[in-house]
Amino acid sequence: MLKLVTTPATPEIRQAAWTHEIERSALQDLLAEATPPAILSLALGLPAAELFPAAAFAQAAQRLLSTDERALQYGPPSAALKRQIVSLMKRRGVACREAQVFLTTGAQQGLSLLTRLLLDPVGQVLTEELVYPGFQQALQPFRAVCLTVPTDLRTGMDVDAVESLLRTGQHPSLIYVVADGHNPLGVSMSRDSRLRLTELARRYGVPIIEDDPYGFLSYDGEPAPPLRAFDERWVFYVGSFSKIFAPALRVGWLVVPEELTPNLAILKESSDIDTATFTQRALAVYLETGALDAHLSMLRDAYRARRDAMICALEQHLPPAARWHVPAAGVFVWVELPGPVDTGELFKVAIRQEGVAFVPGCAFRVGESSCADASLRLNFSNSSPALIEDGVARIARALKRM
Amino acid sequence: MLKLVTTPATPEIRQAAWTHEIERSALQDLLAEATPPAILSLALGLPAAELFPAAAFAQAAQRLLSTDERALQYGPPSAALKRQIVSLMKRRGVACREAQVFLTTGAQQGLSLLTRLLLDPVGQVLTEELVYPGFQQALQPFRAVCLTVPTDLRTGMDVDAVESLLRTGQHPSLIYVVADGHNPLGVSMSRDSRLRLTELARRYGVPIIEDDPYGFLSYDGEPAPPLRAFDERWVFYVGSFSKIFAPALRVGWLVVPEELTPNLAILKESSDIDTATFTQRALAVYLETGALDAHLSMLRDAYRARRDAMICALEQHLPPAARWHVPAAGVFVWVELPGPVDTGELFKVAIRQEGVAFVPGCAFRVGESSCADASLRLNFSNSSPALIEDGVARIARALKRM
Repeated sequence: MLKLVTTPATPEIRQAAWTHEIERSALQDLLAEATPPAILSLALGLPAAELFPAAAFAQAAQRLLSTDERALQYGPPSAALKRQIVSLMKRRGVACREAQVFLTTGAQQGLSLLTRLLLDPVGQVLTEELVYPGFQQALQPFRAVCLTVPTDLRTGMDVDAVESLLRTGQHPSLIYVVADGHNPLGVSMSRDSRLRLTELARRYGVPIIEDDPYGFLSYDGEPAPPLRAFDERWVFYVGSFSKIFAPALRVGWLVVPEELTPNLAILKESSDIDTATFTQRALAVYLETGALDAHLSMLRDAYRARRDAMICALEQHLPPAARWHVPAAGVFVWVELPGPVDTGELFKVAIRQEGVAFVPGCAFRVGESSCADASLRLNFSNSSPALIEDGVARIARALKRM
Repeated sequence: MLKLVTTPATPEIRQAAWTHEIERSALQDLLAEATPPAILSLALGLPAAELFPAAAFAQAAQRLLSTDERALQYGPPSAALKRQIVSLMKRRGVACREAQVFLTTGAQQGLSLLTRLLLDPVGQVLTEELVYPGFQQALQPFRAVCLTVPTDLRTGMDVDAVESLLRTGQHPSLIYVVADGHNPLGVSMSRDSRLRLTELARRYGVPIIEDDPYGFLSYDGEPAPPLRAFDERWVFYVGSFSKIFAPALRVGWLVVPEELTPNLAILKESSDIDTATFTQRALAVYLETGALDAHLSMLRDAYRARRDAMICALEQHLPPAARWHVPAAGVFVWVELPGPVDTGELFKVAIRQEGVAFVPGCAFRVGESSCADASLRLNFSNSSPALIEDGVARIARALKRM
């Protein structure tokens, strides 16, 4: 007689509740798909790899490793790097002390630590309608409620709307803003808006997270100083070496009131141990040579030329009613197309039929509004002027196919 | 007439609720205080800085930077490093695929990501009574409930107790264990205990987090393979280059069922961006030279000599009723002192009067029990045999002062 053996079904691995809700960022999937040389990508905010100071960094690494036996050992976050950051901030018009500088594993960790420091579950956050998706990701574990204000391609965050919102008695845990070379809009706020926004933060006791990956990349004369220059208590500054040196070092920093650093250290310690990394130490050795200023100046020249090539191509190829603004800083141009066009659909046509990528505006939207449906974000830092011209021409051809 | 101006009090910066509860780890404060040369430290689990392969790493970094333009650019986690890790795991008797390897910013990030993947707030976790404090820190944001089982200096985690606990219907979200060179006990589990523990995990559908920073550092012949060798679905392996190469690179890895990696990638992306780091890429270049095997063999010889020096010193200096076990792997010896002695108090005497540091047993305790009050953890990897002998002699003198 046959004996029936029933194999017990393998039980599922039970994961935390959030795993049923969270979504992978659209940008990350684009990164996987739209890779050169098959696709000419104006999508992601990558810096130009051919401009990295690789040889100088190799020298710094070599010098560090041959002179400091503890270069690869655990130890407190690099004091030498903090010193260099204080001096870097000074060149932006920001006075701060080493004790206010907190080193992070890239700016994304800075955003992640600050949200965890400030937000309780289901807390409230004030943002613009269009926001860097990495910040939205940092919010996801909290299921935070975003109070949004309009934002404008020419002037940035609507500070009047911020004031109205705070005046009604709403008390968000933080205000998130990119004041220079906004991602995705490319806009930089006026000095007056900066003053007014920091004044509101102070008056209502709501801290500002100032995310500043692009502020050192300014192209048209002396820019206004960061928000942190206007208030040292209510502005928590997030800086990054990813765009001004190289992203693979994973070195960023915060400038925060000193009283916050012990709790930030606790958070960082449980995340990835609050220790000096090899790249923090090697970067400090590079910065001590004083070479960054010349490197930044070279980067600004190169990126300015790429920005100008992009604006020129847009004028030449896009329909006359298309709208953009020449960004004074950063690595993005935001384009609003005329008429009823869905840039999500345009994206598919562009990828498949013209081999060119950009990011559709909807990727930056907070919540369910339909703003930015006809917009797209273009990056100019990661392609040569010739490729930029070609890329914009291809997008224009894709638009004609719609 | 005098006009009274009342300055409005500066409102406090409101931080999240957890900030009122969390405590900084005792270990971190020790790191700050007990630093050589003022203090002879047998406290922390630091690897020997003078044995780091610094020159070979400098060469690898130089080669990478001079041959790969994208060495410093964003990009997917290093496939070359994943390949090397698969081969490294094979040498421990673990069969895995590149798709099961997930790269992390050190092992601490591995623990942090896995707890966030598996645990809901106020969830349950099964641990031993004595546990690496970094794991307890990773749990703090969840205010997790720890179900504990006894652990033994000679045999490690009490697997019978695990079975009793699971049989009563408790269903913790995970079991945390260090099977080789346990921190703090130094013990390695027997092959039979490994088999039984993985069998329980499978039967009850509870995943094991196997934290394995020390398994590659074994001193007495062929050790049993890691738990992951016995079950590829229910054991989530956490590996680290911190102790076998160098901590400041911040490179660790997980070996997990492939189905978990998309959610881990989401978590990592929001934490510090899931990108290839410079140190991942440079480490891959180093590993491809095949030099790690000889380095590990050198490390094992050096650490074995240090371990033996420590055991010898303990026999010579401590009272006869003191108890310890010779660790077959790792970097720690756990010592249980006789009679009613509080090693927290001994620590203060040792630091102040003898200039020597260790970690009191209570630092590793889960919850409020009084176990380990008379115990201490000694590290032997970070001091020369002569300093180890001196350090143990000083501790013995401090004990006589009590």
